[in-house]
Amino acid sequence: MRIIIVGASGTMGKFLTNVLKKENHDIIRANRSSGDVQVDITSPVSIENMFKKVGLFDALISTAGPTFIGPWNKLSDQTFRTGVEGKMMGQINLVLIGQHYIKPEGSFTLITGALTHQPQQNFANASAANGAIEGFVRAAAIEIENGIRINAVSPTVIENSPQYFPYFPGEIPTTMKQLESGFRKSLFGTVTGQIINP
Amino acid sequence: MRIIIVGASGTMGKFLTNVLKKENHDIIRANRSSGDVQVDITSPVSIENMFKKVGLFDALISTAGPTFIGPWNKLSDQTFRTGVEGKMMGQINLVLIGQHYIKPEGSFTLITGALTHQPQQNFANASAANGAIEGFVRAAAIEIENGIRINAVSPTVIENSPQYFPYFPGEIPTTMKQLESGFRKSLFGTVTGQIINP
Ligand SMILES: NC(=O)c1ccc[n+]([C@@H]2O[C@H](COP(=O)([O-])OP(=O)(O)OC[C@H]3O[C@@H](n4cnc5c(N)ncnc54)[C@H](OP(=O)(O)O)[C@@H]3O)[C@@H](O)[C@H]2O)c1
Ligand SMILES: NC(=O)c1ccc[n+]([C@@H]2O[C@H](COP(=O)([O-])OP(=O)(O)OC[C@H]3O[C@@H](n4cnc5c(N)ncnc54)[C@H](OP(=O)(O)O)[C@@H]3O)[C@@H](O)[C@H]2O)c1
Repeated sequence: MRIIIVGASGTMGKFLTNVLKKENHDIIRANRSSGDVQVDITSPVSIENMFKKVGLFDALISTAGPTFIGPWNKLSDQTFRTGVEGKMMGQINLVLIGQHYIKPEGSFTLITGALTHQPQQNFANASAANGAIEGFVRAAAIEIENGIRINAVSPTVIENSPQYFPYFPGEIPTTMKQLESGFRKSLFGTVTGQIINP
Repeated sequence: MRIIIVGASGTMGKFLTNVLKKENHDIIRANRSSGDVQVDITSPVSIENMFKKVGLFDALISTAGPTFIGPWNKLSDQTFRTGVEGKMMGQINLVLIGQHYIKPEGSFTLITGALTHQPQQNFANASAANGAIEGFVRAAAIEIENGIRINAVSPTVIENSPQYFPYFPGEIPTTMKQLESGFRKSLFGTVTGQIINP
């Protein structure tokens, strides 16, 4: 499969790139500032340019989703935009624009997270962006054309991100193996409109 | 109680205004273009001005939440902004700004809808905006200060909006009595962080 990984230089993206490369998939790494192609998902023009450069592909995985992390009293219209333009509209635009470049029967797999339903202090912006993506995924699945599938993977804090453990008291981290299996269900299965809890 | 109803000229807002006025609550009707005070929820400046004019209050109900309604192929970054700036950031900013004007132990009650989990054709923008508001409400409840409560009411299509029935095949509409009871649970109860299905 020809698979674009947006956010391939991140903790999740690097792991998934390695796993999928070993299986001889053609992986196109798309990051903000490195990789095979550069993209700023907060810009629809940059997204369109990426797809024009890449050409036809079978699947897109997004593990890019910037949000504002910080205490409640720092939340404002302005700080909230980090997640609105990044994790939310960034990923939604990857689909709205990418649907015109992906092969029929291709798939989009976006990233959300347990914060949608299990909030933690400092992460209200991520909870909102996640909720938006999950609502969008369910809705997109009933309208998107050409047999294209769309799902989201929703892990809790992952084992390779110990820097976040203090924010998630008592949480048992999602293992990288579980995370991988979540993405596999969307990439290689037939489900659509699902929020996959790996 | 001194209650601001944002969207008081709408189908839901008019109904709730009448019900609550009969019980001698002090209702402040806030609409885009009529009412006791005007507000454009897509503008943080306009929201701040409304709160400055109104002064202290006990509760805010929002039944204002514009979204883009239309077929999938009309969805773009631009059309998607109707719901992002309106139903999503409009309501989030009512809380982020309004928390500095509401009385301690006051409450915010926002509007979402069944489309969060039960998508329908033409309503992907509402599904995303709803999901964002629901994630935000759960997260806000664990961080907002001074005993302020926050909930959302999530009806399906309501009985007073027959123009939407064709979009919701087989759906049994939420009665106005059910809708009212949903808002009552948030206004007069003690719950917080809840998505109330009336
Ligand atoms: N880590 C966890 O425990 C965890 C758990 C649940 C959910 N999540 C969610 O999963 C996602 C990825 O997490 P992660 O820890 O793997 O992130 P990460 O290590 O910070 O990596 C982020 C990746 O996204 C890219 N990126 C950031 N902003 C971008 C933009 N505007 N345009 C294009 N690419 C951009 C980065 O590219 P550059 O390197 O070029 O900047 C990088 O490749 C986030 O949305 C996060 O909320 C994470
Ligand atoms: N109707 C249903 O069956 C149903 C079911 C589930 C959920 N919902 C949701 O419930 C909400 C209200 O529905 P409705 O049918 O009662 O709506 P509606 O009759 O169209 O009324 C909308 C109200 O919101 C106000 N408004 C619109 N844009 C605004 C803005 N930018 N700033 C301030 N106020 C604004 C309008 O004021 P003006 O009159 O001054 O423009 C009006 O008072 C919507 O978010 C809808 O998605 C509706």
